[in-house]
Amino acid sequence: MNLKQQLTDTAKAAQSASRFMLTLSSAAKNKALKSMALALLKAKKDILAANKKDIAKAKGPKANKALIDRLSLNSKRIKAMADSLIELTKLHDPVGEVIKAWRIPNGLRIHKVRVPIGVIAIIYESRPDVTSDCIGLCFKSGNAVILRAGREARNSNLAIFSALQEVIKKYKIPAAVANIVPTTDRRAVDLLLKLDNYIDLAIPRGGEGLIKRVVSVSRIPVIKHYKGICHVYVDEWADLNMAQEVCFNAKVQRPGVCNAMESMLVHRDVAARFLPGMLKQFQEAGVKIRGCSLTQKIASRIKPALKHLGWVTQATDKDYRTEYLDLVLSVKVVENLGEAISHINNYGSRHSEAIITENYENALQFLRQVDSACVYVNASTRFTDGHQFGMGAEIGISTDKLHARGPMALEELTTYKYMVFGNGQVRR
Amino acid sequence: MNLKQQLTDTAKAAQSASRFMLTLSSAAKNKALKSMALALLKAKKDILAANKKDIAKAKGPKANKALIDRLSLNSKRIKAMADSLIELTKLHDPVGEVIKAWRIPNGLRIHKVRVPIGVIAIIYESRPDVTSDCIGLCFKSGNAVILRAGREARNSNLAIFSALQEVIKKYKIPAAVANIVPTTDRRAVDLLLKLDNYIDLAIPRGGEGLIKRVVSVSRIPVIKHYKGICHVYVDEWADLNMAQEVCFNAKVQRPGVCNAMESMLVHRDVAARFLPGMLKQFQEAGVKIRGCSLTQKIASRIKPALKHLGWVTQATDKDYRTEYLDLVLSVKVVENLGEAISHINNYGSRHSEAIITENYENALQFLRQVDSACVYVNASTRFTDGHQFGMGAEIGISTDKLHARGPMALEELTTYKYMVFGNGQVRR
Repeated sequence: MNLKQQLTDTAKAAQSASRFMLTLSSAAKNKALKSMALALLKAKKDILAANKKDIAKAKGPKANKALIDRLSLNSKRIKAMADSLIELTKLHDPVGEVIKAWRIPNGLRIHKVRVPIGVIAIIYESRPDVTSDCIGLCFKSGNAVILRAGREARNSNLAIFSALQEVIKKYKIPAAVANIVPTTDRRAVDLLLKLDNYIDLAIPRGGEGLIKRVVSVSRIPVIKHYKGICHVYVDEWADLNMAQEVCFNAKVQRPGVCNAMESMLVHRDVAARFLPGMLKQFQEAGVKIRGCSLTQKIASRIKPALKHLGWVTQATDKDYRTEYLDLVLSVKVVENLGEAISHINNYGSRHSEAIITENYENALQFLRQVDSACVYVNASTRFTDGHQFGMGAEIGISTDKLHARGPMALEELTTYKYMVFGNGQVRR
Repeated sequence: MNLKQQLTDTAKAAQSASRFMLTLSSAAKNKALKSMALALLKAKKDILAANKKDIAKAKGPKANKALIDRLSLNSKRIKAMADSLIELTKLHDPVGEVIKAWRIPNGLRIHKVRVPIGVIAIIYESRPDVTSDCIGLCFKSGNAVILRAGREARNSNLAIFSALQEVIKKYKIPAAVANIVPTTDRRAVDLLLKLDNYIDLAIPRGGEGLIKRVVSVSRIPVIKHYKGICHVYVDEWADLNMAQEVCFNAKVQRPGVCNAMESMLVHRDVAARFLPGMLKQFQEAGVKIRGCSLTQKIASRIKPALKHLGWVTQATDKDYRTEYLDLVLSVKVVENLGEAISHINNYGSRHSEAIITENYENALQFLRQVDSACVYVNASTRFTDGHQFGMGAEIGISTDKLHARGPMALEELTTYKYMVFGNGQVRR
């Protein structure tokens, strides 16, 4: 059987399984999720053995340390995977929720009801814990899932998948509610993304290259979980102590994640007061600065001059578009709030931005005009996260504007339909 | 300037104008919409003169009557266009609505707020009234719009567009909130659909070919307003009088629209009682039947036999997938509710379907398992319509599952963002 036929059969079976999922109660889904958590813990040995093989392969002469870290499983990480599944059982099941209901003059009752999306394809790279997270999230929200994982974690993924698949079979749920593309053939992604008759949504998770490729190939709607070039803007009316604390937190508390600050904007009237202390604190934490000319000027006045120590270098246009995911920060002094907003809308990635200000009008203008998923007043961008927002586990942070924006959790894995209750109404 | 650069400039200007729209109050938008309605009435002469040119061109030796009907404007149609704009002023402005708001333990207040999508590209065919409808809907919902209209209605569209554009200028709103692609060059659509940095959503309105082409080319998210292959299923527990009335209405009241019934499914246990009267009534109304073998058998028993009169012919697989938009209906006798649901999910277009039944469990099963935007119990599918649903004017009926499903009105032309109010919160 050729690859295209094989993938089509998988997608068809997934569609049929997604329809079965409509018949499962929340209680039944939660029971299965609990069993899945136990199954992961039970299969720990097998999963770790499989993971060892993946790591051995990755540890070639050109070993990439970050890749190996993302790949590596241990008892603690497997426990965390199981805990995530248990957590899902405690979250509200969005399926069946009546979003709105009303009656129209002829007596028809219209209910707008939340339903699963159907079949979701997830294309991701090397983190094996994504496998169980995605299966759990899609299962709880009543969707069938087709996973296409990176080849680096192939053995680990298959071990995790088969542990979860056992449970699905045990509960007499069609196996095709969770699928993993069984080949590492690169053409599989392209073929999968053409199956718009069977797959309702594609979610790529990974680097910019992967996401761009999926968007350019896909005939299925794609929700992009893109990079986070997050900004904090220190307004002329900022409480500068608060500004320093928030900016430091947004950059340093965990620099490798998408909601960390990558670019700091400072109103010119407070730059001379704010930047010296802020830059010193960043220097002490090992943060390198890519600054505009004014930032550099201020940095060179600090003794010993940060600029001459190499902590501050010239920011280029490319810097303002870079997600460092590291202890590097671009800093720009702006003329006014308007310039800050334009800069964010032009250079940002529509993820998370904050203004630090005590000025009411400026706060409102920032909230309204910044075109990002999450806009903050006087708080760190680091809160953009399903757990922090109280939405529970998330499949990622959408930087798209359609369907789901920001943290994408169970509710965002659903759509709606209109159920209309009549007693013989016809249109006149 | 080449076409690509020209379109890019248009899209950039539209994005900038869309940001200006965020500053307009509902009152200001309504005032401008009222002026637009008046401007259309004032420009009647010019619009009709332009329309005459389009019709003259269309009336070649290969004149297409349906096309000329869609193209033709008259005083009444222009009045209707103006009325639609006035109606928009009366509808609730969705922008700024707080969908949900909550506080998390550290005191952050999270508001999920409805905002415009941004820039919407609409690609449509020959109906010139779509031009003013789309400009009005996008304007009220705070979006900038780029229209790409069919070449047949070029003169009419430009006349309508320039009347509305005058008003936009008069109110000192950036002209780029409403744009019309100024060329009939066919490459323009392809180029436009690659501008995902500036355009947030593409909506194709027209035939299947147009929609498929847009989906295959677009890098921008597309919401499809596809065909309606709507079903009514007459259950074994149906009130057969009600069934006959509803089915007749769904097929005959206005056969040329997407929410009309194209396929009727009948439970085998009621077929012999239901079909003779039903088929007779359809025959009297001029409805041609494409029937399954059992339907044909029953039709041949009616005197004079409908089958021999040519009213009933054999239904093919293709018939079940056809949107006739005409007085033609496919009819199938099914074994049970399960077969009816499978048939609808396999052959339907996810638009609107109805069950006629007095059985509670069957009604619920149909509502839950049929994967369509609108599912009805004991009512005609003809109600799937923004106006009928009480949502006001609509941009179409989405047959997609992502973002918007079913009637797509003002609210569906918005997205949301999270506004987060803090007082110095940092992540620990």
